[in-house]
Amino acid sequence: MDTYEELLARLKDIDLIGQIGGLISWDQEVLMPPKAASLRAEQLAWVSKAGHERLTDQKIGELLTQLESDDGLDEVGLANVRLARESYDRATKLPTGFVEEMAKHRSRAQISWTEARSKDDFSIFRDDLAKAIELARKKADYLGYEDLRYDALLDLYETGLTVARVDPLFAGLRDKVAPLIRAVMESGRRPDTSWIDDNSWPQPAQEQLSQGVAEAIGFDFNAGRRDASTHPFCGGPNPDDVRWTTRYNESDPFGSLYGSMHETGHGTYEQGRRRDLDFQPAGQANGLGVHESQSRLWENQVGRSREFCEWALPLWKKCFPENTEEIGVEELWQAVNLVEPSLIRVEADEATYNLHIMIRYEIEKMLIGGSLEVDDLPDAWDDMYEEFLGIRAPNRALGVLQDIHWSMGAFGYFPTYTLGNLYAAQLLEAARGELPEHDLQISRGDFVPLLSWMREHVHSRGSILKPAQLIEEATGAAPSPDAFVRYLGSKIERLYGIKA
Amino acid sequence: MDTYEELLARLKDIDLIGQIGGLISWDQEVLMPPKAASLRAEQLAWVSKAGHERLTDQKIGELLTQLESDDGLDEVGLANVRLARESYDRATKLPTGFVEEMAKHRSRAQISWTEARSKDDFSIFRDDLAKAIELARKKADYLGYEDLRYDALLDLYETGLTVARVDPLFAGLRDKVAPLIRAVMESGRRPDTSWIDDNSWPQPAQEQLSQGVAEAIGFDFNAGRRDASTHPFCGGPNPDDVRWTTRYNESDPFGSLYGSMHETGHGTYEQGRRRDLDFQPAGQANGLGVHESQSRLWENQVGRSREFCEWALPLWKKCFPENTEEIGVEELWQAVNLVEPSLIRVEADEATYNLHIMIRYEIEKMLIGGSLEVDDLPDAWDDMYEEFLGIRAPNRALGVLQDIHWSMGAFGYFPTYTLGNLYAAQLLEAARGELPEHDLQISRGDFVPLLSWMREHVHSRGSILKPAQLIEEATGAAPSPDAFVRYLGSKIERLYGIKA
Repeated sequence: MDTYEELLARLKDIDLIGQIGGLISWDQEVLMPPKAASLRAEQLAWVSKAGHERLTDQKIGELLTQLESDDGLDEVGLANVRLARESYDRATKLPTGFVEEMAKHRSRAQISWTEARSKDDFSIFRDDLAKAIELARKKADYLGYEDLRYDALLDLYETGLTVARVDPLFAGLRDKVAPLIRAVMESGRRPDTSWIDDNSWPQPAQEQLSQGVAEAIGFDFNAGRRDASTHPFCGGPNPDDVRWTTRYNESDPFGSLYGSMHETGHGTYEQGRRRDLDFQPAGQANGLGVHESQSRLWENQVGRSREFCEWALPLWKKCFPENTEEIGVEELWQAVNLVEPSLIRVEADEATYNLHIMIRYEIEKMLIGGSLEVDDLPDAWDDMYEEFLGIRAPNRALGVLQDIHWSMGAFGYFPTYTLGNLYAAQLLEAARGELPEHDLQISRGDFVPLLSWMREHVHSRGSILKPAQLIEEATGAAPSPDAFVRYLGSKIERLYGIKA
Repeated sequence: MDTYEELLARLKDIDLIGQIGGLISWDQEVLMPPKAASLRAEQLAWVSKAGHERLTDQKIGELLTQLESDDGLDEVGLANVRLARESYDRATKLPTGFVEEMAKHRSRAQISWTEARSKDDFSIFRDDLAKAIELARKKADYLGYEDLRYDALLDLYETGLTVARVDPLFAGLRDKVAPLIRAVMESGRRPDTSWIDDNSWPQPAQEQLSQGVAEAIGFDFNAGRRDASTHPFCGGPNPDDVRWTTRYNESDPFGSLYGSMHETGHGTYEQGRRRDLDFQPAGQANGLGVHESQSRLWENQVGRSREFCEWALPLWKKCFPENTEEIGVEELWQAVNLVEPSLIRVEADEATYNLHIMIRYEIEKMLIGGSLEVDDLPDAWDDMYEEFLGIRAPNRALGVLQDIHWSMGAFGYFPTYTLGNLYAAQLLEAARGELPEHDLQISRGDFVPLLSWMREHVHSRGSILKPAQLIEEATGAAPSPDAFVRYLGSKIERLYGIKA
């Protein structure tokens, strides 16, 4: 077996372990009986240890060193070597004792965060948060960075991401989107959503709507499933077995539909991977930002377009004949595009969402950089919400304690949500350039051309390129906030008559 | 770490791999999307290889050799060493190349068997069956045996089982049960089951009935699940996560109910294991015969008793008010106890079932021993059905081709089904000795005393004893067909007025 083939055989082994972990994690979230939690944790720990042992085998390091001086590799080979190196370095740079310390602290911090949030008392979480920040800094130091500590953390969730790259993106949003939202608020216009609020929306009909839309978009239910879970997600072991979930609220039909479209976007990405690259890192979906671009594309760019509402209205009327009897495309479109600053990120609309992220990003930079102390955090949070969204949390639970991420030590994760929104807009703008009939196609429910474009330019490209390179290859331009700003500006103009 | 602790640590590792395999196999049967089959096979192969590698590690052999001369072990320690030795020997005695040859042949033979059955043409399966027999003989030679080759195969499914032990059991059944069935047939009496046959039985109500009965028996749904699958089974990873399935037929409500009670029996056994022996072989459920005793206990001994019908009738009436309006306990009891020789084992009633097994056992003995040639098998099968059940298959699909077992190389498996029936009768007879109110309790739906008795005498004893020893400890007598013959005789007397 030659060196490259031996590397691939070892990577296949690691990938299969990951598939098994993916399946049993999915089961844990969706089906597992309550008493099974502790033995499930043992199974997952076993899987994680088995994967870690194989990944950190020094033979992999030796193979990589040999292959890094091999100039006969094609783009896939180069990507496999680069990506395996990334994983190997990340796994070996962190000492085992430190990884265990992080895992233990994560368990502890999630408990204190949960308690702090439910009791609306930041002080319960304070010490564990301070420790989480300290561990994150230490992790960054182990991993290494050129410029800023925070860069090492950003890079974990999207390879190559740095403050130098993210700052201009958020600057663009802050300068353009914040004033737009203010203008909407000042206009005092608000669409009438009483037909939503005053009705009840039975779950079976919501399921029918979600299923119909996911099938129409092109999710293959012979290679995947739809289920329900408390926290919606897309998981499962591999492209032949992609499993997404949603949740149902009988007083709000949008949550399950747009949640389903979001997860369908993640799911079609997984199903669209290049199958000749099964078990290879180069064939995996790209970083979190690109993954989020596919979910946001279908959820927002497509799902909240007037054309989509045109196509979807008959489906709404079939699923909810009484509730929608007097509803036309305009009412539906307005309702799914309500712009309104709110305190909770996960419930935020498309326009205000990225400001929630920007606030977290700025705060993380300061916390990791040391210019913001933990004790000053809660007020700093509220001040920024007031500055950028014009609202202030009445308590900590609706403020700084709302997200689980920091208790998990996931500093550097938030920005990928906004990257997803920006990439989605940029990708759709590029796709439109090649799909002149796009709007007409969407209004007819013909999603094939757009999905095919994504298959070709995003899904099948796997992780062959770094995320920013992938976006540049697909769209002809480096990642920027411009397409998103244009998209949002034109939509708000159509909806509210406000010119950016 | 001392020697015994090191063995336990290694056994825990192997057990966890088995748990993971159990979960993903369950998923494969119950939920997996169709296209996921081939990658799922890769996952399962990985799990199986990982387990095999750990089990055959020569360090385990060394630890066992040391521990086998350790006279300080208690009964649990002795059992763990004995059981680990059994697994280690079985895994190491078969050469890797031979195991692969068996696995490949199994895949091939299942395909030819499926085709042969669907085309009703034994010749399609003939060569693969001949090869399967040859491989089974070879396997027996690798494993070793004292007396007969077939003993080595019997031992695989129930430790210590031999022809010398099984022959007297089947002789008892042949001498006593076959004449009883003939007498029933000659009596010409047949209960009126038109209320079953002429009605439709909606699935949701069947589910409600199954669920209600399983809960009443004591299956803990916080540590397990009920689902639907084509082939009902009880699986899942561990005692906190026991998953059984059933199937529904809207023209027959008994299939799902008695299938559910059968799997509930398996499930309560798994849930009743000693939890301080988690991950240890001594804490596992005992061989297949003892496992089957728990399923047959609830399905037949309890489930088809008049007292159970008394308790269950109101539940039937609640689930199927119209179909059961004029039905009393007597009609229900008669209907669930129909005795009627039939061609298909899996549809056979409680009285004739064991004759189906006896025929297979006698045939396997001859096939492995060499006194029956494959070409003579189909007619030999039909002749024995005529002799013992008085009916002859009109074709091969309803005759020799009906079971999957031989295509899987599972020679020696069938007898455990009958052992289960005999053990169930023997256990219930012993339990009745300590539960004088048993009949009254069952008629009131108080299943706690019987389940508790099984917990104490069977479930919590795990695999500490060999199966036959366990039965002797629990009942005070070695395994015998007597209790079953008494049970069946008295029931047939009550039902048909026929004295054995």
